Amino acid sequence: MNLYFDNSATSFPKPPEVEIYIREYLLQGGTYGRGAYNRVFLASKRVEETRNLISNIIGTGLNSNILFTFNSTSALNTVIKGFNYKKGRVLISPLEHNAVCRPLQHLKNLGVIEFDILPHCSDGLVDLISSKSIEFDQYDLVIVNHTSNVNGVIQPVSEIKEMIGSTPLLLDASQSVGKTEIRVDDWSIDYLALTAHKGLMGPTGVGALFVRNSDSLSPFIHGGTGSLSESFEMPEHLPDKFEAGTPNILGIYGLYGAITANTERQYSWTSFISLLKELNKLRNLKLLAANNADYQSDVFSIKPLVQSVSDLSRVLYQNYGIETRSGLHCSPLAHQTLGTFPDGTVRFSLSKYHTDNDLEFLLNCLVKENEKR
Amino acid sequence: MNLYFDNSATSFPKPPEVEIYIREYLLQGGTYGRGAYNRVFLASKRVEETRNLISNIIGTGLNSNILFTFNSTSALNTVIKGFNYKKGRVLISPLEHNAVCRPLQHLKNLGVIEFDILPHCSDGLVDLISSKSIEFDQYDLVIVNHTSNVNGVIQPVSEIKEMIGSTPLLLDASQSVGKTEIRVDDWSIDYLALTAHKGLMGPTGVGALFVRNSDSLSPFIHGGTGSLSESFEMPEHLPDKFEAGTPNILGIYGLYGAITANTERQYSWTSFISLLKELNKLRNLKLLAANNADYQSDVFSIKPLVQSVSDLSRVLYQNYGIETRSGLHCSPLAHQTLGTFPDGTVRFSLSKYHTDNDLEFLLNCLVKENEKR
Repeated sequence: MNLYFDNSATSFPKPPEVEIYIREYLLQGGTYGRGAYNRVFLASKRVEETRNLISNIIGTGLNSNILFTFNSTSALNTVIKGFNYKKGRVLISPLEHNAVCRPLQHLKNLGVIEFDILPHCSDGLVDLISSKSIEFDQYDLVIVNHTSNVNGVIQPVSEIKEMIGSTPLLLDASQSVGKTEIRVDDWSIDYLALTAHKGLMGPTGVGALFVRNSDSLSPFIHGGTGSLSESFEMPEHLPDKFEAGTPNILGIYGLYGAITANTERQYSWTSFISLLKELNKLRNLKLLAANNADYQSDVFSIKPLVQSVSDLSRVLYQNYGIETRSGLHCSPLAHQTLGTFPDGTVRFSLSKYHTDNDLEFLLNCLVKENEKR
Repeated sequence: MNLYFDNSATSFPKPPEVEIYIREYLLQGGTYGRGAYNRVFLASKRVEETRNLISNIIGTGLNSNILFTFNSTSALNTVIKGFNYKKGRVLISPLEHNAVCRPLQHLKNLGVIEFDILPHCSDGLVDLISSKSIEFDQYDLVIVNHTSNVNGVIQPVSEIKEMIGSTPLLLDASQSVGKTEIRVDDWSIDYLALTAHKGLMGPTGVGALFVRNSDSLSPFIHGGTGSLSESFEMPEHLPDKFEAGTPNILGIYGLYGAITANTERQYSWTSFISLLKELNKLRNLKLLAANNADYQSDVFSIKPLVQSVSDLSRVLYQNYGIETRSGLHCSPLAHQTLGTFPDGTVRFSLSKYHTDNDLEFLLNCLVKENEKR
C-alpha cells in the first residue's frame, strides 16, 4: 500500500533508474564542458542527452534553449528578474505559487512593476470569456501556473497564449511536467520553468528553464562557464549565458534515469475521477478540484468543515498512515482565489506508482473520518 | 593508480558514504520543513545535521547562519548582488575566479560599483605590507579567494581581516573548504561561500553560504519557504530568508556522507612539497605555486615553455592517462596576476585519495616529457 500523497512536495518513490544513473556518475566522475578527457566527455554527453529529453517532453526542437537550473524557483527568478520591463505591468493567473508571487512582490516593492490577476471561475480556471476585454498589449509579461499545486486545475495554456497574442508568456510547469501534455512550440510559449523532482520523479537540486528568445533576458547568476574565460562578461551564447558555475551533474544523471524509466501510471484515471466524485458527496469535507474534470490533474485538496486542516492531516497520518500536507502550500494567492485563505486545505497529490487499491483505501479512510464527525 | 588530477573542477572519486546516504534518502524520501509526517522529520533532521557539520568545519557556532545554496557561484552571487553598497567600491584579491569577477563586472556595468585589486607578491599572495597604506574604510566590501584554483596559494585570511578592520570580508572558500583550516568566528569573517563537490568530496548541486549578519543582505532568490506562507514577502528569519524553493535534499544527504566519512589524506605533505621542488628544476616547464610552501594548497599549475598548454595536457592524457585541465580555469584575473594570460596553464589538483606512488608517477611522466623537448 502506497499512502504517500505528498508528491506535489516531492515525488516518492523514485524509479529505480534514478539510483542506477546516479551510481553510474559516482563511478565515472567528470565535470561538465570543462576539460578534455573521457570522464568530461561522458558527463557532458549525458547532460546534453538529458537536455534533449527535456526538449522532447515539453515539445520543442530548440534543445539548447533548455537551460539547467537548480529548481523551478531559480528558473522562475531567472525570468522574472532578468526580464526587461518596459510597461511595468505583469498579469498572472489566479492560482500562482509564491515562487512567482514573491519575486513579483519584490519587483513591486522596488517600483519596477505592478501585477494584476486574470479573471477566473470559482475553481481558479482562467475565464477566457471575461478575459477577452483585457488589453494584453498593456502588459510586459503574462505568467500562468500550468497546474495548480492546490486543487490540480490545469489551465488552458494554448487558448490563453492565443488570446494574449504577442505578449510573452511564462509558464510555470512545476506541477505539470511529466504529467500533463506540454507543447511549447505549438503553443508559442516564450518561457517555461520546471523541476525534476515532482512529476518527472527525478532527484532534488535540478530544474530547467526554456527560453525561446535568449536576448530577452539578462543573466540571473554570473560566474564561470568554462567558455570565453578571458572575459569578465558572461557569454551571450546558450546554454552558457544562463548556466554559471558547476551544474548539478549528479542530479542530471538521476533525472536522465527518471525520464528514461518512462514509468506508466498504475491507477486508472477513471478511478481517480470516481474518487473525486465520491469525496464530493461527503458532508463534513469540502472538495477543492476542477469544476470540469477535463481540467483536472492528479492533485486535489480537502477543506474539513468541522475540524482544522492540521487536525485532519494529523488524524489521517496517525490513524491510517496517510501522508498529506496541510496549510497554504506556499500558494496564498491560490487559497485566496479558492476561498480557503488563510487556513488552507489538506492536499492530496498522487504518483504514477499509486494503484486503484491505494485510491480505494484513501476513500474509505476519508469516508470513515467523515462519519465520525 | 589514481591519475585524476582535476579535483579542483570536481572531486573524484567520492567517499563510498556519499552513495550510501543518497540511497538512504532515495529509500526514505521526504521534503524539507514542509509537512508533518516522519519522512519530512527525518529529511529535515538530516539537513539540519549537515548544516551543523558545515558550521563545525568552518568554525562557527552560528549554525542557522549557514544557508544552503546550489553551488559556490550561487552563494557568491547572493552576497555580491544582495549587498547594500554605500560607497560603491569593492576590493578584491588578485587571484579571484570569474564567480566573483563576473558578478562584480555586472554591477560595474550597471554603475553600482568599481572594484580594485589588493597589492600582491609575484605568486598572487596578498602583500600585507604594501596593503597597509590602503584606506579600507573607503570600501564597502573586500573579497578574498581563500585558495587559488590556479596555483594553490592560500591567502593569510586572518591577517587580511585584521588589517581591513570593520570593512566586511567575503571569503570564497570554494577550493579551501575540507582542505585548509577555516575559523570564521575567530577570524571575524562576515561572509563565506563554499561548495560540496570539491574539497568536501560531496555531490554536485550543493553549496553553502555563511552570513554573520543577515540584515546586511537582501534575498537573492525569492520564492516559497514553507514558512509565513500567507505573505508575498520573504521571511526575515534564517535560514528561510535565503532558502527559497526546495533545497537539494538528496545532495545534502550525499554531503552528509562525504563529511562524516572523514577521509584521511593518503599521500604525505612532504612528498607533495618535494614533488613541487623537483618540478621547479625542470627546464622546459615553469611551475606556478606559492613562493613560500607555508602558503601552498594541493593545487599547482605548469606553464610549458616549448609547447602549448592544450598540447601538454593532451600528451599527459594520451601517453600516461593523466587527467588535467588546461587553459584559464575560469580565472582570467589570476592568470593576469601570474603572467600566464591569455594562454593559461596546465593545472594539477589533488585529492585525499592520491598516494605517494601517484605523485611519484606524475613526477616521472613530467620529467620524461620535459626531456623529450
